[in-house]
Amino acid sequence: MGMMTSKDYRESLKLLKPEIYYMGEKVENILDHPAFVPHVNAAALTYDMAIAPEFEELTSATSHLTGQKINRFTHIHHSHDDLVKKVKMLRAIGQQTGSCFQRCVGHDGLNAVYSVTYDIDQKKGTGYHKRFVKLLKEIQARDLMISGAMTDPKGDRSLPPSKQKDPDAYLHIVQRKTGGIVVRGAKAHITGAVNSHGHLVMPTTSMTADDADYAVCCYVPVDALGVIHVFGRQTNDTRKCDCMLDQGNVEYGIVGGEALIVFDNVFVPWEHVFMCGEYEFAYQLVERFATAHRQNYGGCKTGLADALIGATYLLAEAQGTGGATHIREKLVDMVHLAETLYCCSIACSCQGYALPADSYMADPLLANVTKLNVTRNVYEIARLAQDIAGGILATLPAETDWKDPRVGKYVDKYMKGAADVSTETRMRLIRLLEAMTCGTALVESMHGAGSPQAQRIMIWRQANLEHKKRLAQKLAKIGEQPFLVC
Amino acid sequence: MGMMTSKDYRESLKLLKPEIYYMGEKVENILDHPAFVPHVNAAALTYDMAIAPEFEELTSATSHLTGQKINRFTHIHHSHDDLVKKVKMLRAIGQQTGSCFQRCVGHDGLNAVYSVTYDIDQKKGTGYHKRFVKLLKEIQARDLMISGAMTDPKGDRSLPPSKQKDPDAYLHIVQRKTGGIVVRGAKAHITGAVNSHGHLVMPTTSMTADDADYAVCCYVPVDALGVIHVFGRQTNDTRKCDCMLDQGNVEYGIVGGEALIVFDNVFVPWEHVFMCGEYEFAYQLVERFATAHRQNYGGCKTGLADALIGATYLLAEAQGTGGATHIREKLVDMVHLAETLYCCSIACSCQGYALPADSYMADPLLANVTKLNVTRNVYEIARLAQDIAGGILATLPAETDWKDPRVGKYVDKYMKGAADVSTETRMRLIRLLEAMTCGTALVESMHGAGSPQAQRIMIWRQANLEHKKRLAQKLAKIGEQPFLVC
Amino acid sequence: MGMMTSKDYRESLKLLKPEIYYMGEKVENILDHPAFVPHVNAAALTYDMAIAPEFEELTSATSHLTGQKINRFTHIHHSHDDLVKKVKMLRAIGQQTGSCFQRCVGHDGLNAVYSVTYDIDQKKGTGYHKRFVKLLKEIQARDLMISGAMTDPKGDRSLPPSKQKDPDAYLHIVQRKTGGIVVRGAKAHITGAVNSHGHLVMPTTSMTADDADYAVCCYVPVDALGVIHVFGRQTNDTRKCDCMLDQGNVEYGIVGGEALIVFDNVFVPWEHVFMCGEYEFAYQLVERFATAHRQNYGGCKTGLADALIGATYLLAEAQGTGGATHIREKLVDMVHLAETLYCCSIACSCQGYALPADSYMADPLLANVTKLNVTRNVYEIARLAQDIAGGILATLPAETDWKDPRVGKYVDKYMKGAADVSTETRMRLIRLLEAMTCGTALVESMHGAGSPQAQRIMIWRQANLEHKKRLAQKLAKIGEQPFLVC
Amino acid sequence: MGMMTSKDYRESLKLLKPEIYYMGEKVENILDHPAFVPHVNAAALTYDMAIAPEFEELTSATSHLTGQKINRFTHIHHSHDDLVKKVKMLRAIGQQTGSCFQRCVGHDGLNAVYSVTYDIDQKKGTGYHKRFVKLLKEIQARDLMISGAMTDPKGDRSLPPSKQKDPDAYLHIVQRKTGGIVVRGAKAHITGAVNSHGHLVMPTTSMTADDADYAVCCYVPVDALGVIHVFGRQTNDTRKCDCMLDQGNVEYGIVGGEALIVFDNVFVPWEHVFMCGEYEFAYQLVERFATAHRQNYGGCKTGLADALIGATYLLAEAQGTGGATHIREKLVDMVHLAETLYCCSIACSCQGYALPADSYMADPLLANVTKLNVTRNVYEIARLAQDIAGGILATLPAETDWKDPRVGKYVDKYMKGAADVSTETRMRLIRLLEAMTCGTALVESMHGAGSPQAQRIMIWRQANLEHKKRLAQKLAKIGEQPFLVC
Repeated sequence: MGMMTSKDYRESLKLLKPEIYYMGEKVENILDHPAFVPHVNAAALTYDMAIAPEFEELTSATSHLTGQKINRFTHIHHSHDDLVKKVKMLRAIGQQTGSCFQRCVGHDGLNAVYSVTYDIDQKKGTGYHKRFVKLLKEIQARDLMISGAMTDPKGDRSLPPSKQKDPDAYLHIVQRKTGGIVVRGAKAHITGAVNSHGHLVMPTTSMTADDADYAVCCYVPVDALGVIHVFGRQTNDTRKCDCMLDQGNVEYGIVGGEALIVFDNVFVPWEHVFMCGEYEFAYQLVERFATAHRQNYGGCKTGLADALIGATYLLAEAQGTGGATHIREKLVDMVHLAETLYCCSIACSCQGYALPADSYMADPLLANVTKLNVTRNVYEIARLAQDIAGGILATLPAETDWKDPRVGKYVDKYMKGAADVSTETRMRLIRLLEAMTCGTALVESMHGAGSPQAQRIMIWRQANLEHKKRLAQKLAKIGEQPFLVC
Repeated sequence: MGMMTSKDYRESLKLLKPEIYYMGEKVENILDHPAFVPHVNAAALTYDMAIAPEFEELTSATSHLTGQKINRFTHIHHSHDDLVKKVKMLRAIGQQTGSCFQRCVGHDGLNAVYSVTYDIDQKKGTGYHKRFVKLLKEIQARDLMISGAMTDPKGDRSLPPSKQKDPDAYLHIVQRKTGGIVVRGAKAHITGAVNSHGHLVMPTTSMTADDADYAVCCYVPVDALGVIHVFGRQTNDTRKCDCMLDQGNVEYGIVGGEALIVFDNVFVPWEHVFMCGEYEFAYQLVERFATAHRQNYGGCKTGLADALIGATYLLAEAQGTGGATHIREKLVDMVHLAETLYCCSIACSCQGYALPADSYMADPLLANVTKLNVTRNVYEIARLAQDIAGGILATLPAETDWKDPRVGKYVDKYMKGAADVSTETRMRLIRLLEAMTCGTALVESMHGAGSPQAQRIMIWRQANLEHKKRLAQKLAKIGEQPFLVC
Repeated sequence: MGMMTSKDYRESLKLLKPEIYYMGEKVENILDHPAFVPHVNAAALTYDMAIAPEFEELTSATSHLTGQKINRFTHIHHSHDDLVKKVKMLRAIGQQTGSCFQRCVGHDGLNAVYSVTYDIDQKKGTGYHKRFVKLLKEIQARDLMISGAMTDPKGDRSLPPSKQKDPDAYLHIVQRKTGGIVVRGAKAHITGAVNSHGHLVMPTTSMTADDADYAVCCYVPVDALGVIHVFGRQTNDTRKCDCMLDQGNVEYGIVGGEALIVFDNVFVPWEHVFMCGEYEFAYQLVERFATAHRQNYGGCKTGLADALIGATYLLAEAQGTGGATHIREKLVDMVHLAETLYCCSIACSCQGYALPADSYMADPLLANVTKLNVTRNVYEIARLAQDIAGGILATLPAETDWKDPRVGKYVDKYMKGAADVSTETRMRLIRLLEAMTCGTALVESMHGAGSPQAQRIMIWRQANLEHKKRLAQKLAKIGEQPFLVC
Repeated sequence: MGMMTSKDYRESLKLLKPEIYYMGEKVENILDHPAFVPHVNAAALTYDMAIAPEFEELTSATSHLTGQKINRFTHIHHSHDDLVKKVKMLRAIGQQTGSCFQRCVGHDGLNAVYSVTYDIDQKKGTGYHKRFVKLLKEIQARDLMISGAMTDPKGDRSLPPSKQKDPDAYLHIVQRKTGGIVVRGAKAHITGAVNSHGHLVMPTTSMTADDADYAVCCYVPVDALGVIHVFGRQTNDTRKCDCMLDQGNVEYGIVGGEALIVFDNVFVPWEHVFMCGEYEFAYQLVERFATAHRQNYGGCKTGLADALIGATYLLAEAQGTGGATHIREKLVDMVHLAETLYCCSIACSCQGYALPADSYMADPLLANVTKLNVTRNVYEIARLAQDIAGGILATLPAETDWKDPRVGKYVDKYMKGAADVSTETRMRLIRLLEAMTCGTALVESMHGAGSPQAQRIMIWRQANLEHKKRLAQKLAKIGEQPFLVC
């Protein structure tokens, strides 16, 4: 009990028996499988950094439930400072991993469910919050990694859950029993799923009475009966299995390791059920989770950008272009784009507020603004990195050719850039840029925490356009008004 | 003594005799001159809002020198909260005026000079800070409006002050006397100059020993002998003199009312001199002022954008397009662009820090990021407003034609949009959009608080690229490093 | 008879008595009125350039009706070469005027009506085309300037013509008489209207049977009974009346001089009626005109941009920044953005095709792509010009202050830039940039030839998305197909 | 002899014995190696399409040397029509392959060397052109595929060839013999190299007398002694070896199959040497080749975009979002961005001109504008495709899991979208989008035909800024000038 180290975390995973498939193979032990190791490494770092003296102010917190020191990823925010520290923690870890470290999703789920169960209970006289607090105490005490399992497969996006041809397109309650419920369906794109201890299942959209059986929130251990994980493919994923240098980000991979989680008639005891048919709270839960999660993206992605900017600058120097004016201007653009994201995450944190449950949530309008900027700026940062890197990003020979006794000497000779930088260094930088700017790394920036249109809809709803209209009427002397306070 | 109302402010201006020229005319009384009234109105509102119950939490502060309640525009920041409140105050006032209200420039000058005089004294054993505090107390007590007179005409931008063909291209000390100094030169684009009580003169660039005579900071009353103001032209400026409706922003005009201030051998007594040859502090003063001033632009400009977005939406409704999907998407874009600016200003404020003088300054990197975003987003917001408004923005007949007995009926009939909105309302909205999106309103967003390239240079300097390089080396396994703390 | 010189053109205007109002005044003679002179000058240049040896290859053509040499602005395109030459002519004239020269609108109207009347006759057995050819011969022979009067006031944009509360929101036939028809309504934003010889009235939108009375196309002399012009306001329009240098573009103004044309029960004889209720051809006429007109914008606007880029570069040199790398990069961006527009106009011309009437039309998809790029690139070019120009663009004192015996010496001294450029030259360049980048000049780029959304709708319709789908199916091996020809 | 079919082409490759390495392996037969087959397929299609009746007007031409019908990829342009047809051919083939088909590089090399050898001979009295024509006749007669081997490894980009620490960083002449020359060095990123019949070696930069030995142009058979190919890695390259559906573009791969070609003291007989020390023509050759090659990118990339847009729209429909307004607006954006590229390629072709050798070259300014737009628009098109596609693009399970007897049923069930589209179809579309928008596909758009900065430098040189300055002076009345012809 208590905060775990990365070693503890790996040991704890060994005790679990999740059912995992990948590339037509049943994976018995992710700790031994090279396709999974980078993702475990990234999650593991969240344990070590929580107890590292250089970082613990950001990465740990004090439980409001027990007063114990806990990993911040299990903490319920209770102040602006908590919200800001989350963002800074994400940037700090992102700088170290250069890729997704997965744990924020569950963290945001915990905070969302914490506050919404409180609200349901207030309104409906249910007892979800107390149940949830009990689970939360355990999570904090055992320092568990929890996935945030929200997104359903959704089938036909133009139809609500209850109108889908396949009723399982959204996860739903198929049976209510004395001891608990049985759920069926799936959750898609779930970050860190296979190396988590358990899944926090949440509904993914607003619902009506027709969708009541889809309004379900619960906790399911990763190796519960009927839970099946299918790990998704990523850009250049096989390089993790047969390359070293060609991986680019050798230790931590590219993205968070997303999986499809199938729930094939999974039984959940009542103590782990936190919403069961209260469809009118589904939207609130989605919005709280989405706000918390969108708040993050100017934290972690700026951390990644820091490393990417550094790599790009080093590569320019390795090629003799580090001093060119246009390179410098592009680096300024990269910094500018990255820090803009950071500003957004910091601002939505500072402007957050207390919820009825006394926990804190980021400002929804600004959190959505944050994420919408991420869907653009991260792409532009990557484009600038690729501009500076040069065409070699697309044509670099394999490390096996560089090491080959027949052609290795040619590769080493002709892949050399500036005289004072080794070919190996240049190749490592090229591969790192490749890993960080191609494919899944960008797509995750686009759709993680919801697709851009979801953010746009929220911005429209939150923008207080009526107030803006009144301001304009006053200036244009259309009618007369007193001072207008927003 | 004490905080002034707008009435007090106007009365106080009547007691001054500044020398002002505009359009070939010597202006005796700006309170009676329609070209100046809108600017006085905007500045005057900063007085009334400071005592308005709805706003005083943002717009007033407690003097750290006297403990008295003061207008925030005369306050020295002593916390993150002060920095954030400045931004919120600027947005709140900007929402009311829809144009520049001028007073932030002097405010930022006061804060910059306050902290830099402290640093000079610490280093050089001078007594500038004490002198300045004395002036500051008076400014706070009398609630004076101070211009921030920094930008020199600069002549040939490729040469430093001391190398200019005309030595007066930058303001400089021409004589040191027993009682004070004599300065000559000019300050350009000075916001609110003609309706201020005095000018806070500051150097505008980094300097070397050769430029020592140009390293001068001092306070000069607006009507001091030898001080001459030439008020600049603005877009559609003559409409302020002969139109009502066609002005668009009838009460507050378009921009801040910028003037060229000529200092033709002006004597400044020692008690008003705060830098006199300490060239090595010129850059620091510029940077402090620039940071403080760039911090602002996501405040006031977001306030203006709020009103502009409201006006645009109203105009769309007035034309029957308020419900069109593409209009809504453009409004979302406008909100998104505006709130991004706000995020930046809030973030650089939250991330500010204490200076040796114990006053607070915004984070320089993020403040520059803020302003650089303003130079783009404000233009794009305006472009979107013009897109939604339609071509009528460029062809609307004059109000005199609308009122004309011969053609007024045609103008009213054919300028009518949706059935439930009067032609007058539509025309007022069109003119407001015109005022807020054409010409000087945008240029001010580009160059106020320094041109974009100035922000880019600061971003380059502040970006800590060496740390970023080390992060990349660690990820790419180029050498081995321990945890890296930024 | 025959091609006119600018002098002939001015003389011809004197013979007309159009009813014109502006700023509450009835304007008796536009040739003497400073608000109108720049627009007359720009149109007049289209006459002189048509006979100038340096330009005549572009600016004149051979009438397919008479074999006579004619001004290209009265020519019906009969080849790709005609279409390309139109674009080059527009760029060439735009380089000389730096503003709209108005005549293309009528030119495009002539081409649209020429081909559509042919189609109507083919389908309906009417005799419109022959009538129109007769008028066209006269226009060519007398070298008349014709406005293209298409855009109706439109009232509530969410309703079609026949559903408007005010039936006159769109121009319509109110009476059919033996000798002709009577029309009522108005046309808005009509370029060059007041200095044209006549108006070519065209419907502005697609129509149904209910709108049949709105499907009217006809020719109306500028001084026909019941035709009333209300000239619209433009940015800084009063400077044309009381300034020289402050106008910026002293000779040619800013935009095309748009007017509201009211048709208050105007009688049109049958010989000048070219559509009278054939609502099913309204859309075709709109599309043909729109295509022709959108084709132009990468011609004239690139010509304007050429002058603007030159002015910006000169101003940079006048300020000592002409050699700065970032200035050069921005100039490259300006050129790039402008030439992209030119490419679009050239391409849609090259890819044009013959219509049933044997006249040529630009490619509709590419013409719409052209215009949509204009609505963005012109704004960005202006923004870059303002970036390079500096804040002086928003604060330059009036020329009257520069000439003032009291402060002129100060203005001249402190507005001086680089030593080898006079203050007057710098001021002229600043004012030219101001004229070309502020306000109406940009709005015209947005909405002239139809608003951006109109282009987007056309792009959607013309994009042949079904063919694109089949290409994708083939690549993804979804079914099997043979070669696919677009 | 004569035009080959794809079958002939494959047979002809079998007769060659190029030395090729890839992933640490010596590749004996690319026709049997799955990593190479897609690239051979794409090149092979250029043979079949040249004789396909639907395409031959674009894809074949008549040799000006022999009057024989030839594949257009071996043709020397002799008219605007030739230039335009090249662009249309590239678009047409790109629509079929969805990836690079490689042959344009050699084609552009042939045209560049053809015209420059003529110019060298004219100036220096050499006999290169005659030699080259002889080779060209053979290439046309045998329908050979020629690589354009221009880009050197370059070592330190801040140094010219002769100043590099490793003199082989640029390919150079190491010996001049009676029968020919010996060259050493390498050419990097060479498209289609391993499946070409021979390499057309060209210098890559402007040179001075010191670099004379680097000024070498020659032809080298793909299997000449000392020529070694190292094939570069591409995004997801191993999928070509072990997947079907997961490849996305099953038949044609992602990019052109770029290789590093090492020339380890390769002997070239004089008959195949076309420049040998004439350093003063190096730049001209580079510029001619670059112009020809940059001209292409709005052809082929628009073809690819056509297929990508189709795939994106199909995927939206497969997910139930095909009718959403925001999806449609994004598709319009994609079309708009793609057609803008096409406009640029068409325009630079139409505006091309004849060279002294009587062959035709595209307009250099507009060709560079074309390519610079490609470096942006292709990225934005990809971003929009990824926006529409959704997060599934980054998390889709492997085809082996979909086929797996244990979890295949779950993957099929939960990856299903709209009811009327099979999971397989949706998966194929997702993989196609992945292949076309991730990684190397984009990088090629950035750096193929030269990096963006190379285009910017050319735009600066070609922009005729002096003419633009004079236009501005005329408008601003700075001096007086007559009409200005560009």
